[in-house]
Amino acid sequence: MTVKRGREFLQTPGPTNVPERVLRAMHRPALDPTGEAFRQLALDCMAGLKPIFRTEGHVFLYAANGHGAWEAALVNTLAPGDRVLVPETGNFSVGWKTMAESLGLVVDELPSDWRHGIDPAAVEARLAEDKAREIKAVLMVHTDTATGITSDVAAVRRAIDGAGHPALFMVDAIASLATTDFRMDEWGVDVTVAASQKGLMLPAGMSFTAAGEKALAASRGGGRMARNYWDWEARLVEAPSYRWFCGTGPHSFIYGLIEAMAMLEEEGLDRVFTRHRRLAGAVRAAVRAWGREGPLEINAMVESQQAHSITAILVPEELKPGEMRQVCLERFQVSIGGGLGRLAGKAFRIGHMGDLNEPMILGALAGVEASLRTAGIPHAPGGITAAIESLTEAPA
Amino acid sequence: MTVKRGREFLQTPGPTNVPERVLRAMHRPALDPTGEAFRQLALDCMAGLKPIFRTEGHVFLYAANGHGAWEAALVNTLAPGDRVLVPETGNFSVGWKTMAESLGLVVDELPSDWRHGIDPAAVEARLAEDKAREIKAVLMVHTDTATGITSDVAAVRRAIDGAGHPALFMVDAIASLATTDFRMDEWGVDVTVAASQKGLMLPAGMSFTAAGEKALAASRGGGRMARNYWDWEARLVEAPSYRWFCGTGPHSFIYGLIEAMAMLEEEGLDRVFTRHRRLAGAVRAAVRAWGREGPLEINAMVESQQAHSITAILVPEELKPGEMRQVCLERFQVSIGGGLGRLAGKAFRIGHMGDLNEPMILGALAGVEASLRTAGIPHAPGGITAAIESLTEAPA
Amino acid sequence: MTVKRGREFLQTPGPTNVPERVLRAMHRPALDPTGEAFRQLALDCMAGLKPIFRTEGHVFLYAANGHGAWEAALVNTLAPGDRVLVPETGNFSVGWKTMAESLGLVVDELPSDWRHGIDPAAVEARLAEDKAREIKAVLMVHTDTATGITSDVAAVRRAIDGAGHPALFMVDAIASLATTDFRMDEWGVDVTVAASQKGLMLPAGMSFTAAGEKALAASRGGGRMARNYWDWEARLVEAPSYRWFCGTGPHSFIYGLIEAMAMLEEEGLDRVFTRHRRLAGAVRAAVRAWGREGPLEINAMVESQQAHSITAILVPEELKPGEMRQVCLERFQVSIGGGLGRLAGKAFRIGHMGDLNEPMILGALAGVEASLRTAGIPHAPGGITAAIESLTEAPA
Amino acid sequence: MTVKRGREFLQTPGPTNVPERVLRAMHRPALDPTGEAFRQLALDCMAGLKPIFRTEGHVFLYAANGHGAWEAALVNTLAPGDRVLVPETGNFSVGWKTMAESLGLVVDELPSDWRHGIDPAAVEARLAEDKAREIKAVLMVHTDTATGITSDVAAVRRAIDGAGHPALFMVDAIASLATTDFRMDEWGVDVTVAASQKGLMLPAGMSFTAAGEKALAASRGGGRMARNYWDWEARLVEAPSYRWFCGTGPHSFIYGLIEAMAMLEEEGLDRVFTRHRRLAGAVRAAVRAWGREGPLEINAMVESQQAHSITAILVPEELKPGEMRQVCLERFQVSIGGGLGRLAGKAFRIGHMGDLNEPMILGALAGVEASLRTAGIPHAPGGITAAIESLTEAPA
Repeated sequence: MTVKRGREFLQTPGPTNVPERVLRAMHRPALDPTGEAFRQLALDCMAGLKPIFRTEGHVFLYAANGHGAWEAALVNTLAPGDRVLVPETGNFSVGWKTMAESLGLVVDELPSDWRHGIDPAAVEARLAEDKAREIKAVLMVHTDTATGITSDVAAVRRAIDGAGHPALFMVDAIASLATTDFRMDEWGVDVTVAASQKGLMLPAGMSFTAAGEKALAASRGGGRMARNYWDWEARLVEAPSYRWFCGTGPHSFIYGLIEAMAMLEEEGLDRVFTRHRRLAGAVRAAVRAWGREGPLEINAMVESQQAHSITAILVPEELKPGEMRQVCLERFQVSIGGGLGRLAGKAFRIGHMGDLNEPMILGALAGVEASLRTAGIPHAPGGITAAIESLTEAPA
Repeated sequence: MTVKRGREFLQTPGPTNVPERVLRAMHRPALDPTGEAFRQLALDCMAGLKPIFRTEGHVFLYAANGHGAWEAALVNTLAPGDRVLVPETGNFSVGWKTMAESLGLVVDELPSDWRHGIDPAAVEARLAEDKAREIKAVLMVHTDTATGITSDVAAVRRAIDGAGHPALFMVDAIASLATTDFRMDEWGVDVTVAASQKGLMLPAGMSFTAAGEKALAASRGGGRMARNYWDWEARLVEAPSYRWFCGTGPHSFIYGLIEAMAMLEEEGLDRVFTRHRRLAGAVRAAVRAWGREGPLEINAMVESQQAHSITAILVPEELKPGEMRQVCLERFQVSIGGGLGRLAGKAFRIGHMGDLNEPMILGALAGVEASLRTAGIPHAPGGITAAIESLTEAPA
Repeated sequence: MTVKRGREFLQTPGPTNVPERVLRAMHRPALDPTGEAFRQLALDCMAGLKPIFRTEGHVFLYAANGHGAWEAALVNTLAPGDRVLVPETGNFSVGWKTMAESLGLVVDELPSDWRHGIDPAAVEARLAEDKAREIKAVLMVHTDTATGITSDVAAVRRAIDGAGHPALFMVDAIASLATTDFRMDEWGVDVTVAASQKGLMLPAGMSFTAAGEKALAASRGGGRMARNYWDWEARLVEAPSYRWFCGTGPHSFIYGLIEAMAMLEEEGLDRVFTRHRRLAGAVRAAVRAWGREGPLEINAMVESQQAHSITAILVPEELKPGEMRQVCLERFQVSIGGGLGRLAGKAFRIGHMGDLNEPMILGALAGVEASLRTAGIPHAPGGITAAIESLTEAPA
Repeated sequence: MTVKRGREFLQTPGPTNVPERVLRAMHRPALDPTGEAFRQLALDCMAGLKPIFRTEGHVFLYAANGHGAWEAALVNTLAPGDRVLVPETGNFSVGWKTMAESLGLVVDELPSDWRHGIDPAAVEARLAEDKAREIKAVLMVHTDTATGITSDVAAVRRAIDGAGHPALFMVDAIASLATTDFRMDEWGVDVTVAASQKGLMLPAGMSFTAAGEKALAASRGGGRMARNYWDWEARLVEAPSYRWFCGTGPHSFIYGLIEAMAMLEEEGLDRVFTRHRRLAGAVRAAVRAWGREGPLEINAMVESQQAHSITAILVPEELKPGEMRQVCLERFQVSIGGGLGRLAGKAFRIGHMGDLNEPMILGALAGVEASLRTAGIPHAPGGITAAIESLTEAPA
C-alpha cells in the first residue's frame, strides 16, 4: 500500500475544508449547557447568522445534518397530505421531494433536464393553475450540488407573486449560503434550509432553518405534522437555553460557528462572494480549455446558472470517470465528487466553496489534469494555464 | 470581572470531560463522506459499539443529540395513537413521556417519589391488567440524570415477562452506557437509546439507537409514524454509506468515537465500571460526611439504586443551593448541576462519569466543600477526608 | 498494567500546566521566518515581555531551555577567568555555579543550609572584602525550585550597593517570573534569566535573558567568552529578524508566548501574584495540618521566604518519600517532584505555579494526602480541610 | 487590507509544512521531565533517529535551532585556534564559516561560484598540502539551502581519504536529512548536524548533532572550547534523563518527533527520497518551461547537483524578483524564499521538502506562474503543464 504524504485536497462539494482557525476553536473542553456562558454563545450564534441569511427571522440551530433541516422545514409548516410544488434542479431537489413524500406530503414536480435552472414561467403557470390553492409550499434548491446549477430565487419569488399564490416559499441554500448572494427577506423566502459543512466551513453535523413570520405563523397552525425534536415552537422559548437545542447543545459546533462567522465578517460577505466567483471562473476556464479537444464539458449550459460553489463536468460513460476519480484520489491526492443520480457514472464534480484560495484550487485542478492524462481521458492540456490567466485577469 | 485561570472542573452530569486524546482525534480535516475511507470508519463505529451496548443488534448513528435518539426510538417502532407505559424515575422519564405525548402516543405513567427506582412489581401488575395488549412499549430510563437513581433493567424485563406481555422494551441508557453495567441482549432490551456526551466521552451532538430483531421487525410494520431522518430502514442499506447518516456524516464525531472506543477497550468495560463505582463511592462518602451536621443528604434513598454516574444532593430550598452553585462556579471553578423538575431549587447534582479520576473528583468535591462553607450552608467539614478514606480503601 | 483515565495532575515545579488556549495557539502551520508576519510576532514578543520583567532593557529570546539562558547570561558579559559570587540557595544556585566553573569562571560561593534565603549581610561583607574588585558578577537565584525558598532581590541589591561594589547583578527568575513580584529595573538587576515552562505557561524549550544597559555595555567589552549562538550583539540588529534568533525562530513558541502574555495581561500581574500567594497558602495550610502528627514539615523555615510557586516538604529518609511519590503518580495520578541534590530522598516538592486554580491544587493535595495514607507516612488527616479553610478565608 | 482565506502555501525552504498528525501529537499537556514516561520518550527519539541518520553513533538532541547544532559540533570537537577547511557551497557554508571564526577557529575556505557543488579534487589537493596536519576538520554543507546545490558527501570523504588526512569530517545535513539519501556511517561522516524544521517536518526549535566514535573521542580530548549547554559528555550519562537535554527537555518537540519518525518509517526512507526526487523533477520541469522564453534559469548548473529539497531560480536583478515574491505571497498566498547572500535580489527559491505531495507543489508552482504573469516577469506560460507531464511520467 502506498503511504500518502502531505495534505489531501478536499474538493468534494461538501464537506469543505475546515479552516485551522475553526478546528482550533472547536478543540475545547465541554461546558455546562445550562449555564450562562453557553447561553451567551448560543445567542451569539443565532444573532450572528441573521446577517448571513439576510433575514430578520429566527434561525433555528439543529444538532443534525442538512437532511435534518430539510425535515424540520417540512414538519413545522405543513400538515399530513399537504401538496407541495418542487421544481426539479438535480439530485437534491429529487432528494427533498422524496423526503416530502415519505413524510406523507403530495408532491407536484416540475421536471427539468438537469442542465438548466428552474424556469420561473413554468412555476408561475403551475401555480396559476392551482385555483384551489391546494399547493401549500414551493420547495426550491438554490444551488443543486449534483448539477452545479444555481437557479434564480428572486425570479421564482416573482413567479409566485405573479400567480398571486399564497404558498410558502422554502429554499434549500445548503450549497449557496456564504458562497453566493442570497437574500432571504428581500427575496421573500419564508424558510431557508442550510447546513454547517459548506460555505460555513464547519464539519458536518449542524444545520439550520431560518423562518420568517409567515412560516412561524404556519407552524403555529393546528394539524401540523407530529414532531418534537424539530419543533420550532418548543425551541422559541426564552429560557432555559437547552430547549433551543431540544436537549444538550453541540458545544464544539457552537464554538466553531462563532469562529467561522467571525471569519466571514472579517472578509465581508460581498468579498466572500467575489472570491467564490473568481475561483469558479478559474475552474470553468480549465474545463473549457480541456474541452477544446475531446468530450469534456460543463454540465450547466447557461453561463449565468453555473454555480459559484460547484462545477459538474460531463464525461462520456465509456471513458469511466469513476476510474479517473480513483487515480485522482489515490495517486494525486485530490478528492473530487462523482456524478449523482441521473449523472452517476457520467460526470465528476469539483467543489469550490468555503475556505479556498488560488493555490488550493489550482493545485486541485492540476491534480485533475494529471489524472485525466494518466487515465487517458481525451482533453487538451493547458487547463491550468487557462485557469491562471483567468485568475490574473480577475479583480483581486 | 474576575479573570479565571486554570482548568474549570466540569462536574455537570453531561456533557462530561472530553479527553485530550478524543479532542486531538477530532481535530482533523473533513473527508469525502461518499468515499471508502469514510465508509470504513463508519463501519468501525457501528461494529465497535456493539460490545459496548452488549448487543448483536444494529446500532444506528445519528447526527443529533440524545433527544433525537429518543424520538428515533419512538417513531420507528410505534404507530400514532399507540399506548406506552412509562415508569417514572425523575425528570428524564418525564421528558421522554412528554415527547411521546407530543408525537401522538398515549402514555400510562407509573408515578414515583423521585427517591426510589422503578418498582418491577408495579410494572408487572400494570402490564398484567392490560389484557387487550394495548400497551405497545415500556419506556424506561436506566439511570435518571435528574435524580441520580439507577433502576434495575433486568428486573423490569422479568416483570414484563412475568406478565407475559409482548410490549417492546426500550431503555434510555444515556447516563449509564459505559459507566454502569448494561447488557442489552442478555436483559432483553429491544431498543437502547444513548448519546455521545456521557460515558462515551465525546462532545454532545451524536446519539444512538441500538435495535434488536423484535424492534427492527416492528419498524418494518405498516402504519408507523411518519419519519425520514430517523428512519431505520433507509439507514440499513449496505451502500452508499451516506445513507447510514441520512446525508453527510459527522466526520469529527466519527473520528472522536473511534478514539473513545479504543480508550474503553484499553481499559476494559469492567474496569470502567469499577472505576465509576469507586469514584461514586468517594462522592457519597463526602456527602454523608457533610450531612453529619446539617440537612444535606443523597436523594436516592436505596443504596443499591444510587447511580455510579451522578449524585443528586438534597438541600432545603431556603438555603438556596443555586447561590452555592454560583459560588462554586465563579469562585471555585467547579461546574456542577442544579436540581431539575420537581427538584428545581432543592438540590445540586455532581456528575461523576466519563474521563474521570481520583484527583479530578477530589478537587471537585473540595471545591464544593469550599462553596458550602462560603455560602454558609450548614455541613460538617471533612468531606474530602472521608472521600480520601473511601478511595484508599477501595480496590484500585 | 493499569490503564489510567482522566487528566494527570502535573504538580511538578515546572514544566507547569500549559493552558488550552496556549496549546491551541501553538497548533499552527509554520510561517516564513524571514517574512513580515513573523517579524511582527517576534517584535510583539520582545515588547510584551518588558512589562513582565519590569524592565526597559532588551529581552533576548532563545530557542533553548533555561540552562541555555544561564549560559547566555554568563558568556555575553564575562571574560574567561572572571570571578563571580554565588550565594547558595539550593540545587539551582549550585547548578549555575557548576556551569560557571565549567565555562572557565572562578566562583566564590556563600554557603547556606538550604532552609534559609540569601543573607544580604553576608553578600555585603564578602563584596566589601573584595577590594580589588575582582568579582565581576553576583549570581542569584530568586526562587530556588529545589528548596522552595525565595530570597530578597532588593535586599541583595542594597547589599551590593552598600559595599559600593560594581559587580553585575544577575538574577535567575526562572521560577519567580510571572508568579512572584519581580522588578528588574527598580531592583537594579542587570541580567535576568527566565524560561518558558513556569509562570509563562509554555512548554519547555524557550528561554530569555533580559539585559539592562550596564550588562549590554559589558557584553560589548573586549575579551568576553567565545560565543555565537548566545551572542547578544548579533541578535540586537534591527533586521533581518531571523538574526534575533540566530537562525530560524521557533514559531510555535512565538505563537504560544503571545497568547500566554495576553492571558497575563488580562488577569493583571498583581492578580497573578495574589492568586499564586493564595494557592501557596492552601498548600502550606495542608502541610502544616499533616504535620500536626508526624514528621512532615515545610523546608523553608522563614515564612516570608516560603516561595509562592513551589513548596518543598521534608520527609525522613527512612519513610521513603520516593515510594510515596510513585503511589501518588501511579494510583492517584498526581505528578509531584522529588528532592534534589542535598534533599534527594528526603523531600517531595509540590509545584503551584502557572495556570492553576483552586480545584486543581485541592485535587492535587487530596491526591497527596491519599498517597501519604496509602504509603503509610505518618500524618494527621484533614490537610484538605485546612486548605479549604485557607482558601475560603483568603481574598478571592 | 485584504483578508486572506484558505491555507497559505508554505514553500519556503524551511520551515516546512508541519503535518496535521505532528501538530496533533504536539498538542499535549506537559509531563514530568524527570519521570519514567519522559525518559522512555527521549530514549525512543535517540534510538529512532539513528536509522534516519544511518549511524550507530550517538544522536544528541538540543532545544535550539540548527545554528545551535552548528555551534555544538564545533565546540565539542575543536580547540580555540584550530584550523578548519570549509568548501564554499553558498550562503550556508559561509554562515557556518563565519560562526567558526567568531568562535576563534581559523578557517580555510575553498571558494565557489555558488552554481556548482564542492569539487572533491580541490578538497583533496588542499588537504594534501596540509603536511603539518593543522586542519582539524572539514566542514561541508550537504545541500545548501541558499543555492539549491547538493554536493557529493561520499566523494568528499574519498578526497579526505585520498589525501590520507586525519581531519574530522563534519556535514551539515539540515536540508538533506530525510529528503535526500544520506549515509553517515557508510560515508565516513564524523559529525552530522541537523534540525527539526526541514525533512523532519517539525516546527523550528529542535536540532541535532550525531557523533561517531572519532568525534566523541575528540570531544573527550583536553583543551576543547569552553562549553556547557552544548557539551556532549555531560549529555552522555545514563541518568538522570534531564541531563540529556541539559535541563528541562522540550516535551512538545519530543512528542512531535516521535510522530514524525513514525511517519518516515511508515513511508520508508527510500520512498521518501523517491517522492522528493519526483516533486523536485516537477519543479525543475516548470522552471525549464518558463525559461523557454525569457531569462529564468535554475541556479544549479549541473543536473546531478540540483537539490531534491530546494530549487533556486535566477532572475535578473532589474526584474525585481522581490516584488514578484510579494505578489506571490499577498495575492496568490504562496510563500517562497528570496535570494540570500550573493543571490540577494537576484533569485527566488522554492522549497520542496518535507510533508509535500503533488497537488501541493502544483498549486504552489501555479501560484508562482500567476505571480510571474502578474509581475510582468518574462516567461513562457505552461510551466504547470510541463510539471504535470513530469509527474505523470515519473514512477508513482
